[in-house]
Amino acid sequence: MKKFINNVDHMLAESLRGFATAHADLVEVQFEPTFVTRKQKAQNKVAVISGGGSGHEPLHAGYVGKGMLDAACPGQVFTSPTPDQMLAAAEAVHAGNGVLFIVKNYAGDVMNFEMATEMLPFEHATVYTSDDCAVVNSTYTTGRRGVAGTVIVEKCVGSLAETGADLAACKALGDKINLRTSSIGVALTSCTVPAAGRPTFDISEAEIEMGVGIHGEPGRRREAMRPADAIVSDMVAAILHDIAAKQLPAEGEILLLVNGLGATPLMELYLIYQQAASLLAEKGYRVARSLVGNYITAIDMAGASISVCLLDAEIKQHWDSAVHTAGLRWGI
Amino acid sequence: MKKFINNVDHMLAESLRGFATAHADLVEVQFEPTFVTRKQKAQNKVAVISGGGSGHEPLHAGYVGKGMLDAACPGQVFTSPTPDQMLAAAEAVHAGNGVLFIVKNYAGDVMNFEMATEMLPFEHATVYTSDDCAVVNSTYTTGRRGVAGTVIVEKCVGSLAETGADLAACKALGDKINLRTSSIGVALTSCTVPAAGRPTFDISEAEIEMGVGIHGEPGRRREAMRPADAIVSDMVAAILHDIAAKQLPAEGEILLLVNGLGATPLMELYLIYQQAASLLAEKGYRVARSLVGNYITAIDMAGASISVCLLDAEIKQHWDSAVHTAGLRWGI
Repeated sequence: MKKFINNVDHMLAESLRGFATAHADLVEVQFEPTFVTRKQKAQNKVAVISGGGSGHEPLHAGYVGKGMLDAACPGQVFTSPTPDQMLAAAEAVHAGNGVLFIVKNYAGDVMNFEMATEMLPFEHATVYTSDDCAVVNSTYTTGRRGVAGTVIVEKCVGSLAETGADLAACKALGDKINLRTSSIGVALTSCTVPAAGRPTFDISEAEIEMGVGIHGEPGRRREAMRPADAIVSDMVAAILHDIAAKQLPAEGEILLLVNGLGATPLMELYLIYQQAASLLAEKGYRVARSLVGNYITAIDMAGASISVCLLDAEIKQHWDSAVHTAGLRWGI
Repeated sequence: MKKFINNVDHMLAESLRGFATAHADLVEVQFEPTFVTRKQKAQNKVAVISGGGSGHEPLHAGYVGKGMLDAACPGQVFTSPTPDQMLAAAEAVHAGNGVLFIVKNYAGDVMNFEMATEMLPFEHATVYTSDDCAVVNSTYTTGRRGVAGTVIVEKCVGSLAETGADLAACKALGDKINLRTSSIGVALTSCTVPAAGRPTFDISEAEIEMGVGIHGEPGRRREAMRPADAIVSDMVAAILHDIAAKQLPAEGEILLLVNGLGATPLMELYLIYQQAASLLAEKGYRVARSLVGNYITAIDMAGASISVCLLDAEIKQHWDSAVHTAGLRWGI
């Protein structure tokens, strides 16, 4: 393992210090317990908080800022943050209008966020994201995994909260987007967790892991490496199957997110995007919004995920609204 | 080699089609000859054009848009674009106020851009970037290589051009920024050029290439892998030595750009940033502006570069001005 680190135990704190310094206009980072908040605390709105294991940057700390999250709680790499982090973050950003947690559906995260909410003296609700249609139940999950759709949920719920909408409305929008979003990932290589020091799984030059999780969890199956268009075609088919299974509209406007898992060049992501957009258009979906890049990563995995969110007027409005975070920025 | 490609010969075109579709609000892509322009052609300004081999995305096509480039000419991977691309791009975006080319100092690019300018029927000038202080003369270069400082030149010259400044003023700002910027890169792994199908160089788990070029060209020397802080310390020392050699100010405000070469996680880039910012502050430089992420890549190389630009009021103003491109966006 070759990584830019000094010591695996200090890596997260050292990186967060850099993040805080580089974005000092935007965020503040607290340690013990560790959480990230906006530099300017928001008033008169629901506080929107997310968190999870590190290694998925820019998610979640990179999405703290105006129009998106009020706070993020980063755990150690691929490890849930602890309830004391969530409680401290909630205390710091709560503005009298309740707290909405956005939690990716992994057993450790769910358990710790639930423990935090039980101790929380404020009105609260939780949106669990579970957009990964690859598998049901996995290494760290009961039910479906929350993956790149989480970025769309955080963006749009953050926007709605900014308007002064109440907790129930924010939760309803988050749940709706989660329902209307389907994702699937594929790995060409494993990621390497710094504390482990070696790749999470072995995979040959001739294989891909179809449906891989963002921690390197197994997907649907090990498949033969093949041309990009054939891989993308199977990924889009899985998404379309999921949309049909959820009895969602078979046509209409979509947001297409092609996400890099860490080590995949942008050139390849745009190639994937083109094939996915083309196949989805053939099926009657119009790509009305797009996002291509590294938005939720699996450390240094070569791989990509495709997410399709079925838009409606409300989701589109909140996707388009101004946002100013380290990881997503427009309109400001 | 495992990559998301269908055919190495079609990879660039397929990727550019995806880029054009994903950013249809922002850019248009032409083929044969291949170039990228803004969707809304700018009027009454110097046309700013860059280009170079592909594989460095988001550079350069990702920097076409308001406040930055008018056009970009992407060559095949790590291969200079041809003069007909540059001429066609210049014809398309010239608005009667002359054309400024921004060219990274590689022999192939220099030769082809010079050939284009000889045939160009418009007033023109060229800024050559050569911010890499690692080596003088290299695999593809006579003199110093142009690397991440090119992003700063493109951003600031693009901003100045937007104000209606004349060709000479735009060239002068570009040359000034190039002089005031020093960069150095380091590789943990090689990149793999798709057409070659195997890594450009061999490097063991115990080694790093200090001063690597963005095409995997040799750097200063092969060194032993060591903790990030020790690597960063040597990189910052090289930059400080270069600043002194250029007789530039030994204190003042700087822009610190920590750039990922393709496969390095953001978490590691922020860790590098923190150490670099801390060392530069000890030496009397105040980090006034920061950029951390993948802005000029070497396909899928694990590695990073550090760039320091000595700011002045003019550079800072043009760095801060609004920009709307696929790769850099703020204020819009």
